[in-house]
Amino acid sequence: MSEHNGAMRAIVKPDRSPGLKMVEAPIPQPGPRDALIRVTATSICGTDMHIFRWDPWAQSRINPPVIVGHEFCGHVVEVGEKVTEVKVGDFVSAESHIVCHACRMCRTGRGHLCQNTQIIGVDRDGCWADYIVMPAENLWPNPPDMSPEVASLQENFGNAVHTAFATDLTARKVLVTGCGPVGLMTIMVAKAAGARTIYATDISNYRLRMARDMGADVAINVSEQDAFSIIWEDTGGDGVDVLLEMSGAPQAIDLGFRVLRPGGEAALLGLAPSAIPFDVNNHVVFKGATVYGIVGRELWGTWYRMRGLLSSGLVDLTKVVTHRFSLDEYEKALRVMHSGQSGKVVMFTE
Amino acid sequence: MSEHNGAMRAIVKPDRSPGLKMVEAPIPQPGPRDALIRVTATSICGTDMHIFRWDPWAQSRINPPVIVGHEFCGHVVEVGEKVTEVKVGDFVSAESHIVCHACRMCRTGRGHLCQNTQIIGVDRDGCWADYIVMPAENLWPNPPDMSPEVASLQENFGNAVHTAFATDLTARKVLVTGCGPVGLMTIMVAKAAGARTIYATDISNYRLRMARDMGADVAINVSEQDAFSIIWEDTGGDGVDVLLEMSGAPQAIDLGFRVLRPGGEAALLGLAPSAIPFDVNNHVVFKGATVYGIVGRELWGTWYRMRGLLSSGLVDLTKVVTHRFSLDEYEKALRVMHSGQSGKVVMFTE
Amino acid sequence: MSEHNGAMRAIVKPDRSPGLKMVEAPIPQPGPRDALIRVTATSICGTDMHIFRWDPWAQSRINPPVIVGHEFCGHVVEVGEKVTEVKVGDFVSAESHIVCHACRMCRTGRGHLCQNTQIIGVDRDGCWADYIVMPAENLWPNPPDMSPEVASLQENFGNAVHTAFATDLTARKVLVTGCGPVGLMTIMVAKAAGARTIYATDISNYRLRMARDMGADVAINVSEQDAFSIIWEDTGGDGVDVLLEMSGAPQAIDLGFRVLRPGGEAALLGLAPSAIPFDVNNHVVFKGATVYGIVGRELWGTWYRMRGLLSSGLVDLTKVVTHRFSLDEYEKALRVMHSGQSGKVVMFTE
Amino acid sequence: MSEHNGAMRAIVKPDRSPGLKMVEAPIPQPGPRDALIRVTATSICGTDMHIFRWDPWAQSRINPPVIVGHEFCGHVVEVGEKVTEVKVGDFVSAESHIVCHACRMCRTGRGHLCQNTQIIGVDRDGCWADYIVMPAENLWPNPPDMSPEVASLQENFGNAVHTAFATDLTARKVLVTGCGPVGLMTIMVAKAAGARTIYATDISNYRLRMARDMGADVAINVSEQDAFSIIWEDTGGDGVDVLLEMSGAPQAIDLGFRVLRPGGEAALLGLAPSAIPFDVNNHVVFKGATVYGIVGRELWGTWYRMRGLLSSGLVDLTKVVTHRFSLDEYEKALRVMHSGQSGKVVMFTE
Repeated sequence: MSEHNGAMRAIVKPDRSPGLKMVEAPIPQPGPRDALIRVTATSICGTDMHIFRWDPWAQSRINPPVIVGHEFCGHVVEVGEKVTEVKVGDFVSAESHIVCHACRMCRTGRGHLCQNTQIIGVDRDGCWADYIVMPAENLWPNPPDMSPEVASLQENFGNAVHTAFATDLTARKVLVTGCGPVGLMTIMVAKAAGARTIYATDISNYRLRMARDMGADVAINVSEQDAFSIIWEDTGGDGVDVLLEMSGAPQAIDLGFRVLRPGGEAALLGLAPSAIPFDVNNHVVFKGATVYGIVGRELWGTWYRMRGLLSSGLVDLTKVVTHRFSLDEYEKALRVMHSGQSGKVVMFTE
Repeated sequence: MSEHNGAMRAIVKPDRSPGLKMVEAPIPQPGPRDALIRVTATSICGTDMHIFRWDPWAQSRINPPVIVGHEFCGHVVEVGEKVTEVKVGDFVSAESHIVCHACRMCRTGRGHLCQNTQIIGVDRDGCWADYIVMPAENLWPNPPDMSPEVASLQENFGNAVHTAFATDLTARKVLVTGCGPVGLMTIMVAKAAGARTIYATDISNYRLRMARDMGADVAINVSEQDAFSIIWEDTGGDGVDVLLEMSGAPQAIDLGFRVLRPGGEAALLGLAPSAIPFDVNNHVVFKGATVYGIVGRELWGTWYRMRGLLSSGLVDLTKVVTHRFSLDEYEKALRVMHSGQSGKVVMFTE
Repeated sequence: MSEHNGAMRAIVKPDRSPGLKMVEAPIPQPGPRDALIRVTATSICGTDMHIFRWDPWAQSRINPPVIVGHEFCGHVVEVGEKVTEVKVGDFVSAESHIVCHACRMCRTGRGHLCQNTQIIGVDRDGCWADYIVMPAENLWPNPPDMSPEVASLQENFGNAVHTAFATDLTARKVLVTGCGPVGLMTIMVAKAAGARTIYATDISNYRLRMARDMGADVAINVSEQDAFSIIWEDTGGDGVDVLLEMSGAPQAIDLGFRVLRPGGEAALLGLAPSAIPFDVNNHVVFKGATVYGIVGRELWGTWYRMRGLLSSGLVDLTKVVTHRFSLDEYEKALRVMHSGQSGKVVMFTE
Repeated sequence: MSEHNGAMRAIVKPDRSPGLKMVEAPIPQPGPRDALIRVTATSICGTDMHIFRWDPWAQSRINPPVIVGHEFCGHVVEVGEKVTEVKVGDFVSAESHIVCHACRMCRTGRGHLCQNTQIIGVDRDGCWADYIVMPAENLWPNPPDMSPEVASLQENFGNAVHTAFATDLTARKVLVTGCGPVGLMTIMVAKAAGARTIYATDISNYRLRMARDMGADVAINVSEQDAFSIIWEDTGGDGVDVLLEMSGAPQAIDLGFRVLRPGGEAALLGLAPSAIPFDVNNHVVFKGATVYGIVGRELWGTWYRMRGLLSSGLVDLTKVVTHRFSLDEYEKALRVMHSGQSGKVVMFTE
């Protein structure tokens, strides 16, 4: 029987309708290969907003009641008897995708494409709570002096890193479409990697200002300016070498492929609202383009790359955090996130 | 002044309307870096049919009058003073794309993506004639004993080889969508490369029969059968490792990406009629798929690979030739090609 | 308590001296994640011969007493309570490398480079016995109708497949140096992959005859002929596109790199007796060559590729089996293997 | 007849013995595809020192008399009638390797491996002179405001860029062995590319100081310190991800491979004095390492990458220039270069 008993705060999707609610829940108990983590900080992702708003995707995927949230850090307070990966006291972040190790993808080094993935805060209880139980193998020990907000952001940062490392960016002209938090972090990676020029597009001037702060050389509001012409002229009619598509907006996808140079490469992370009209002839075939679909984080190659970027100081994730709240202020935090006038929003348990 | 003077037969697009016409034209004169070739055999490509029918693409690209045709072989009968690549008497085929050597693509080993490409039979006089002048550097010397029909087919075979070599096919499950001549030749390459299983789809039973002859293990008429279910079951729910899309049909593209396994690769050569609805989330992003746009032939990597396939006997291109005509019978040849009841159609000048 | 108790036959290295000995040993008991396998067939590898002869490598690595052997197949007769990968009755082969899942290599999809690998028959009890216990995750279920000798050979075949798939062989000129069993199987893979020409070298005419049977186009005894000149002339002075080095012989490595064309690729599996003189300037730098070190089998990418080669009939491993014995005849089997006049030697338990 | 007639200064290897000599030579005349360049600045490379000293390599390759030097920049003052690449007045640098465009390497986008390469200052007259004639296609137009010393250095910088881009350096631990000018420039590229940690080794404290200035995090004098232990400990026993070998010193090669992690990558540019003892088992095979031989610059991919690094300010080549002389002071320049107490040495014609 665990020494950590009793109740804790938890933010749950209580039923099949919009909204979230803080409740008192039992502290979960770790199995033999699990660890119990005292959550220090947790951050808000677009996925959480889908669940909050109860949009069609959420309706099709979520089975309430479930504790939400999948980005966090904290300290290990208890481990199951078979656990070797971490020990009590470790300061950890977590890979939110729990994979099966049995499917062909898992067995060939592509666990991020596991066909039986369970995501915390989506398919099972998440981390917007005082405690969470995780399989110990999903934990990533951090340096003890890493700031909790950076530690919490790593899961999401991993999406940016995975996308940016789909191809080599050094000395290349790179377009990042979409300057939400993942787009902003992608710009930071491109900057760290020595991109020649970083173009960024969005429809929010707030976010484009942030994009410039993160290192974008040319930040364009596509609702105000002709992004194609600007990039085309700035590249001397060459177009960009690499497209990193982080928005899923059909117009952004179209723009990105139009300004991609022949022989260029595109990494796609953003999710489109549905099937979109796509000019496969001009966007891919005639250009001899190469396109990479990106999902999750490579297990654990992306995490090792992240460590390199963070421990060397090449990327400073605190720059993308605009708002900090206590967990109790979660409603305020959600409102800020919903406004679009924010970078990453972090909630602390203490 | 050339010793080859006088007139020759040539099939031209005479004006901006459907149809082609055989005319008497002057034998062209080679410049200092050109060669004059006595054409032996020439073959019909889908592009020629677009020009024949005068479809929207042809209307936008072709400036009549122009001699058509871009697949051929023949003997060098005269060379310009600066020519070192070939000599009189050589039996040659030709790369139909004449590139600029000045653009960035040309200067970085990607001449097949040259932004100033001139295609014979499209942008300048082609090879459906007794003679043609070509830049000597565009000629590919053949073994003297190669059959003229195989030699003529090489240009088109190169499209199949370029597509098939976009990724490694050995021991893999491969789907070829579209069994026109290029699709059929792609099946032959996949067979030679040791594909584990070759699936082929089309809407013509004539062509599906040919697909089986070329080595397809499972050939499916998508207008009669549920190709997705057949392939899904036959692969035990894994899907195919590789999609080689040769048709451009929106339904084929959709089918191909649906049965592609996570982490799979798709090479796209077929041209869609226009922008198509494309489920980028499920087809590319969630799957972590990699997509390659394919155009033309790599200069000259694809030709060296072709030589390997042909000289070793791994591929026998005569299997894809169903009809042979004299050049004078070009109208009959076009009718056969138009019927869809053919593989490659070859015309001989003698 | 297992239902499989009592004693079994086992061939062990009993002490720190040359030779092996059949003994009576207790049937091993599976732990919660293990399976107990009734061995059907087991095959002899060069590594087993090192242990038999007690050479310096064996002296430095082996701690007697240990049951030897690491290539086998058999039927699962008992599974631990946590096992999900296999069930009683399954016909299985096994990956002989037991990896840690904790080191960086394991955690980044490169388990074949695990720094804590335990090999059965080397670091822990092996399979030259009536029974063996294996971690269930190391088992590879075979089709029930696969022949036991093919099933046993798969582990070793995996070395050949891993090497051959280091690069693309289709339509290329390939040199395989060393025609021991792994070299012979590599030739079969190159043949299946549609290599343009396969050159093979060895010092044994027995093995070179086998090499020709496996598909080598040109098989050269380097102690009798000038292999460099033969290959150089046969390739028209181009050299080979790919070197697959399976022997570890310094002369073979030197030859292989000398006949490798500029821009060529070399995959090295063979182990040299010690550090060798290597002309890094001419072999690698000036040639712009790419060299791949190959060890073990990719977990489990190589096994999936093997399945593709075997289930399609592209490779028939029975061709490489020259001798079959019962386990009791192990001394005779070792003598045959030692003679160099054999391909693979298989021992059956019944 | 050219308008640029008469005599010019030129530094030549006059005969088959050590030393160089300034002479008066006729201004060379451009052919129809050539350009005549008025040299502004020229820099000294290790190759020039080999020729100066008349070492065995020079004795085997050089046919005096020949004007030496292959790194330079200048202005086009005259062009042949067929020249389209540049025009009079352009400020240009040059690719020093004149390739044949006819061999298989040239024809498959690997011109840097051309088997018929002619190098200026080695196989034909070079650039340590007031004027040089170059094939126009070998010229690389620079921005008019680029500093002459940077422009001159580009050819040599290209070796560094080619080596550094053999693999991806961002967020990785990189070892650069050898801190001569090319090694120093390689460190700058690794820094620009966002390497996590850059280790550098040499035997000269002068050069190691420069290495630190260029961005090396840990610079080790291998004649004074145990480089293996320092790197091993600093990487926590992981070793480095990438080795960039710029020295050719057998000890450096051995060190580099020993500290390379499993699955690591090594790019080799340095030329060894002759065949060296190489532990292929432990350095390559067991590690599953990948090794790239690097020669020259990719035509012209490396040059485009260089442009990206220089025009963005990611790399400032002036930092590597330690000495500047007039061409007349060439003897002083050679003495400085010979001392080992220098970075790049540039000579100006005015």
